[in-house]
Amino acid sequence: MSYYRIEEKALRAFSEESFQKAGFSEEEARIISDVILLSDLYGIESHGVQRFKMYHDNLKSGMVKKYNKTEILKETPVSATLDAHFGMGQLAAYRSMKMAIEKANKTGVGIVTVRNSNHYGIAGYYAKMACEEGLLGLSFTNSGAIMVPTNGRLPMLGSNPIACAMPAEPVDFLFDASTTVVTHGKLEVYRKLGKELPKGWALDDKGEESTDAGRVLDNFNAGKGGGILPLGGADEVHGGHKGYGYGMIVEIFSSILSMGMTSNNCLKGGIDGCCHGFIAIDPDIFGDREEIKNHLSEYLELIRKTLRAAGKERIYTHGEKEIEAMEDRLAKGILVNERTLNEIKEVAEGLQMDCSFY
Amino acid sequence: MSYYRIEEKALRAFSEESFQKAGFSEEEARIISDVILLSDLYGIESHGVQRFKMYHDNLKSGMVKKYNKTEILKETPVSATLDAHFGMGQLAAYRSMKMAIEKANKTGVGIVTVRNSNHYGIAGYYAKMACEEGLLGLSFTNSGAIMVPTNGRLPMLGSNPIACAMPAEPVDFLFDASTTVVTHGKLEVYRKLGKELPKGWALDDKGEESTDAGRVLDNFNAGKGGGILPLGGADEVHGGHKGYGYGMIVEIFSSILSMGMTSNNCLKGGIDGCCHGFIAIDPDIFGDREEIKNHLSEYLELIRKTLRAAGKERIYTHGEKEIEAMEDRLAKGILVNERTLNEIKEVAEGLQMDCSFY
Repeated sequence: MSYYRIEEKALRAFSEESFQKAGFSEEEARIISDVILLSDLYGIESHGVQRFKMYHDNLKSGMVKKYNKTEILKETPVSATLDAHFGMGQLAAYRSMKMAIEKANKTGVGIVTVRNSNHYGIAGYYAKMACEEGLLGLSFTNSGAIMVPTNGRLPMLGSNPIACAMPAEPVDFLFDASTTVVTHGKLEVYRKLGKELPKGWALDDKGEESTDAGRVLDNFNAGKGGGILPLGGADEVHGGHKGYGYGMIVEIFSSILSMGMTSNNCLKGGIDGCCHGFIAIDPDIFGDREEIKNHLSEYLELIRKTLRAAGKERIYTHGEKEIEAMEDRLAKGILVNERTLNEIKEVAEGLQMDCSFY
Repeated sequence: MSYYRIEEKALRAFSEESFQKAGFSEEEARIISDVILLSDLYGIESHGVQRFKMYHDNLKSGMVKKYNKTEILKETPVSATLDAHFGMGQLAAYRSMKMAIEKANKTGVGIVTVRNSNHYGIAGYYAKMACEEGLLGLSFTNSGAIMVPTNGRLPMLGSNPIACAMPAEPVDFLFDASTTVVTHGKLEVYRKLGKELPKGWALDDKGEESTDAGRVLDNFNAGKGGGILPLGGADEVHGGHKGYGYGMIVEIFSSILSMGMTSNNCLKGGIDGCCHGFIAIDPDIFGDREEIKNHLSEYLELIRKTLRAAGKERIYTHGEKEIEAMEDRLAKGILVNERTLNEIKEVAEGLQMDCSFY
């Protein structure tokens, strides 16, 4: 598939205008677009403008209730529980992490959970919000079930990412990954390319390992069972029960504490209903923020400089690839594939917008 | 190797007496023994009385400074940083989680980090302490470096377990696992049995995958490099960078926030110096504790009852195996292997104790 480079500013301006036309305020459209664009800048194509049409379709179908405001159900100096009332996930999540940060700045810690939300983009965006304020940030979300528990054959957990960010020099620590071996999007890429899946990624409808991306996705989409394996694979030999356990920790910090929908109930009957969790922690409550930052920076540097395995070019610390991708995209434009560009054009036509960058 | 069943009470009484003879108070000996025994009761042989001799040896060698008391370096209503001054890990950890629980009972959240400690036993013990008070509990520890970062060939992180426990019926959720594919102890078992390691567990000194347990352990013990892979394996295809990321999160909550030794510096020059982190959260700050517990219990029950994969007997939720092992051990005695019994006898002789259960 052909890729084009689109100037970041043009794509951002288009995105902001499109969400304003769809009914959001200037500020809301700015937040939604910022989450989407950061994903593309970080080189995470799956969660960037590739989802643009999906978000606009969900607004049109009513899955995302654009006029619903997030409501605070319970609040303490260190916590809050919010109900997003099926509004835009990015807005509920942004507000929640802002609250967690304010609480952390006052008491040292802020933990906010949200129920009845929608897809919130990359988990890392919100962890990074805390990090940019000098805090340790964590972000969790459940999602429509795709992960089969160890020994099971039906998906019962979502891809359930955990993101964690903490200030460091010259590059912040930023970890953001699903607790499954891979994500749904990766299987779709393999299907498009007609490639066999690596063993250890997915199960078919009988619960047997399958390398046939088409079969796995067809079964999954038809609700016939099968799905993606937890990090660690199909059994306990390589630690599949651990990935399943991390997925459960995400459910606890999102759907369980908020009394929201667990992943097995999300994305059913025309609503999503996924739940998020956000944690912000001020390192100053443990010691000196700057000393702690230096301590982490030195450790990360040691890891990057340690001896490489045979045939390996470089040891990365988490967050480096994202920063390098961002430098590339800001200089040369965001990589957008042909199909996504066509979808953007469709959205533009529907909203009677000009998309002259296309 | 032959296994014997030893009555739990006899083993516990012996353990308590031995630590009192080694210089601890009755209460201290009780705590240390309770952590060790719970591991055996849970069926986690690697962290039970199998480590008995190690703990006593470390007390004799001075690696564990038995008269040093844990000191509070910094404290807020939601947090504390402690220095264990190289005292007994279980005692520093027990005190820290107690503090986290007290803070959670007052403010909703307690986070305590500890530096300059020693091996603290199973991470799950401390998460379970919070759970038994109706709280969500998390426990982290770093340890002597054994995990190679993705693309590296020298160990830079420990086995770095994460434990998480949360009240549920009929069985609490309890997850406790290293962020490596397997632990050091598992490799030793394979060496003893002369079995080939499964692919994807370990690297040799060149950083190439190795299935030779002896070679991996010899290289590792001699400081020549190689080590155990992060959960997810050697490369990003199966998510090795994710296990490496979870290992880093453990470092942040243990060694980084406490300004302690990162894993690469632990267990050198006759001291350990590992660091721990503990979190206790009161579910009441998000909603109603009982409702949240029921919500989790129902979800866990759904997962246990969901369709099984071909050829699989049962779907477990985390914590079930431990409870079943405990029922078995309490009824029939703790499983202790011959070699460990001989080590216990050695310790008994050194302390001039009777070990009539042997």
